Amino acid sequence: MAAPRDVVSVPAKFDGVRDLWSPRIVAEFNGLHVKLARGKGEFVWHTHEETDEVFLVHRGSVNIQMRDRPSVKLAAGDLYVVPAGVEHRPVVADECELVLIEPASTLNTGDAATAAGEVWI
Amino acid sequence: MAAPRDVVSVPAKFDGVRDLWSPRIVAEFNGLHVKLARGKGEFVWHTHEETDEVFLVHRGSVNIQMRDRPSVKLAAGDLYVVPAGVEHRPVVADECELVLIEPASTLNTGDAATAAGEVWI
Repeated sequence: MAAPRDVVSVPAKFDGVRDLWSPRIVAEFNGLHVKLARGKGEFVWHTHEETDEVFLVHRGSVNIQMRDRPSVKLAAGDLYVVPAGVEHRPVVADECELVLIEPASTLNTGDAATAAGEVWI
Repeated sequence: MAAPRDVVSVPAKFDGVRDLWSPRIVAEFNGLHVKLARGKGEFVWHTHEETDEVFLVHRGSVNIQMRDRPSVKLAAGDLYVVPAGVEHRPVVADECELVLIEPASTLNTGDAATAAGEVWI
C-alpha cells in the first residue's frame, strides 16, 4: 500500500491492477478516492444515488451505457462525469484502463452486497 | 464553453489552453472542478487552507516546492496531492500540461486579489 501522500505513477500502478472490475485506490483528497480499474466485457448496471462519478480513460476505450440517455463512447484521454442518480453500466469490447474518482465511501456497484473489495495499492 | 456533461477529450482541450498558469475548467463533479493548466517557469507561493489540490501531469514535468517538506518532482503520468494548508509553488523548467482537481470555489493562488480568471473551455 502506498502512503496517501506519495507520488503516484499512474502508468506504473496500472501494471499492478490485474483483476477485472476491481478498482484499486491510489490517492485520497478531500474525502475522495482516485482509483484505477481494469475493465473488459460488461460491468453490472448500477447507480450511485448521492455522488457523481468521474471516468478518465487511461488506455483503450469504454462505452458508458445509461438508462435514461444515450450511451457515450470514451477513448483514451477522454473524461466523462456520470451524474449522481443515473443508472449506468460500462461495457468494454477489448480491455481498458480507467481512472475513477468518487467519494471514499462509494462502492463500485453502488450496493454493499455486490461491490468488490477496494484496497490501496 | 463545454456543457458540464459533455465528453471531454483532455488532449484536445489542452490545444486550447495557451496562456501560462491560467487554469481552464473542463468538467465539474460533486462541487469540484477539473481544470487544465499550462505551466512554464515559477508560479507564486500560495496556500489553499481548506482544500487538498490534485496535480496530474499530462505532458512534461513539474517540481512542486513546499515550505515544510521536500520538493517532489512529477513526470508525465504522475499524480500528487498537495495537502490542504501546505504552502507550495510549482516550478517548471520547460513547459508542462497539468490536470488539476479542486473545489469549484478554489482560486489558483488561494487569494482573490491575485488569482487568474478561471473560465470553462
